Amino acid sequence: MDVYEAIYSRRDVRHFRTDPVPDDVLQRILNAAHHAGSVGFMQPWNFLVIRSAATKQRIFDLYKEANRQAAEDYQGEQRALYDSLKLSGILEANINLAVTCDSQRETGGGLGRKSMPETAVYSTCCAIENLWLAARAEGIGVGWVSIVDPDTAKQILGIPKSLTLVAYLCIGVPISFDKKPMLERAGWQARVPLEELVYYEAWGHRSTSPEKV
Amino acid sequence: MDVYEAIYSRRDVRHFRTDPVPDDVLQRILNAAHHAGSVGFMQPWNFLVIRSAATKQRIFDLYKEANRQAAEDYQGEQRALYDSLKLSGILEANINLAVTCDSQRETGGGLGRKSMPETAVYSTCCAIENLWLAARAEGIGVGWVSIVDPDTAKQILGIPKSLTLVAYLCIGVPISFDKKPMLERAGWQARVPLEELVYYEAWGHRSTSPEKV
Repeated sequence: MDVYEAIYSRRDVRHFRTDPVPDDVLQRILNAAHHAGSVGFMQPWNFLVIRSAATKQRIFDLYKEANRQAAEDYQGEQRALYDSLKLSGILEANINLAVTCDSQRETGGGLGRKSMPETAVYSTCCAIENLWLAARAEGIGVGWVSIVDPDTAKQILGIPKSLTLVAYLCIGVPISFDKKPMLERAGWQARVPLEELVYYEAWGHRSTSPEKV
Repeated sequence: MDVYEAIYSRRDVRHFRTDPVPDDVLQRILNAAHHAGSVGFMQPWNFLVIRSAATKQRIFDLYKEANRQAAEDYQGEQRALYDSLKLSGILEANINLAVTCDSQRETGGGLGRKSMPETAVYSTCCAIENLWLAARAEGIGVGWVSIVDPDTAKQILGIPKSLTLVAYLCIGVPISFDKKPMLERAGWQARVPLEELVYYEAWGHRSTSPEKV
C-alpha cells in the first residue's frame, strides 16, 4: 500500500473481529516498528504481546474504572455522547500489545539525549506510528487505549517500574476502516484546518511571505 | 512509495543539498503529519516553518554549544568517533521545522487524557513519523536535531513557554538515502535483533508458547 494511502486511511480502531492475527503479519508490523528512527540509534523499546484472555480482562477492568472516572468530567449532551462512544476493543482484539520505553538503556551511548532526554520516549512513539501504518497496509486495525492508569497496568503486566508504558494497543482484524475518524463522525471533534496550525518564520505568522515577518 | 519501502528506507538525514523544497511537497508532508491519530482527536501540534538563514544560524549556534558539552561525556576512541559524526544539517537544509505540542489545547475536550495526559505529546510524535515517511516517499530527507537546549530554542523561535518543543527538524533534498543508519555504518551502535525486544504474555518471556508462561 502506498504510504500516503496508509496515512490517510489509518484509523484508531475499536471494533474488531475476534479472528487471529497471523504470526507472520505480527512479526512484520513489529519489525516495521523496530525500524523507526531512535535517538542515537538507542532502540529503547520493548513489545509485550498479549493474547491471554485473563490478562486482557484485567486490563479491561482497569479501563472500565478509568473510563467511569473520566466520564464524570462531562455533563448533559456531552456526557451522553461520551457514554455512547466505544473507546477500546481490549477484549475483542486478538492481540493486545504493550509498548514500553527504557530511558536508561545504554544502547546508543547516550548520543543525542543530553539536552533532550525525553527523545527516548519520542522515538518509541515513532515506532508505534510505523507499526500502525504497517498494520493498515496489512489490513489489520490498531487502537490506542490511553484510558488506563499506567502504573497499575505496569503492575499487572510485570513491567519494571523504571520503564515507561508508552502505549497499550489493541491489534486485530477490524470490522471496517471508516472513512473518517470515529470522533469526527460522532460529532465529538472536527478536524482543524491545517493552515491554522502552520506558521512561517515567526510564531503566529501565517503568511509565507518572509518580508512581512 | 510502498509503506514498507518508506519505513525501511527512511533515514535520519544530516547531509543536504541546498536546493529548495517545493511548496506543494512541503504542504503534502505537513498534511501527512496532520493526519496522524491524536488522543481524543486533539490535534495538539503546530508546525513552524523556518527558511530564514539568520534563524537557522541562531539555532545552529545553540546546537554547537550543546554538542560541545555532549562531546565531553566521551573519551578516547569513542570521543574521536563522536567528533567525526555530523549530527545536524541545520544550515544546509532548505527548511527547518519546529514541531510543538500544546498540551492545554481544548480541542478534543480532554477525551483520553485524564489517565495519561502525556499522550498529547505522544500524538505529536506520531505526526512527526508520518511527516518523515511522507517526506521519504517524496525523496525529501528529514533529520531530527535533539542536541539543542529546548528552552533557549523556544525563546529564539518565540514559542510560548507553556508549549513543548517536541522536535526541531531539518528538511531538504538529501545528498543520498544511505542503505543503513549513519550510526550503524559508523560503528557507533548496531541494530538490536528484534527478537530480543519482544516478549510474549509475560514480561521477559521470549517464547510464543503460552503453556510455558
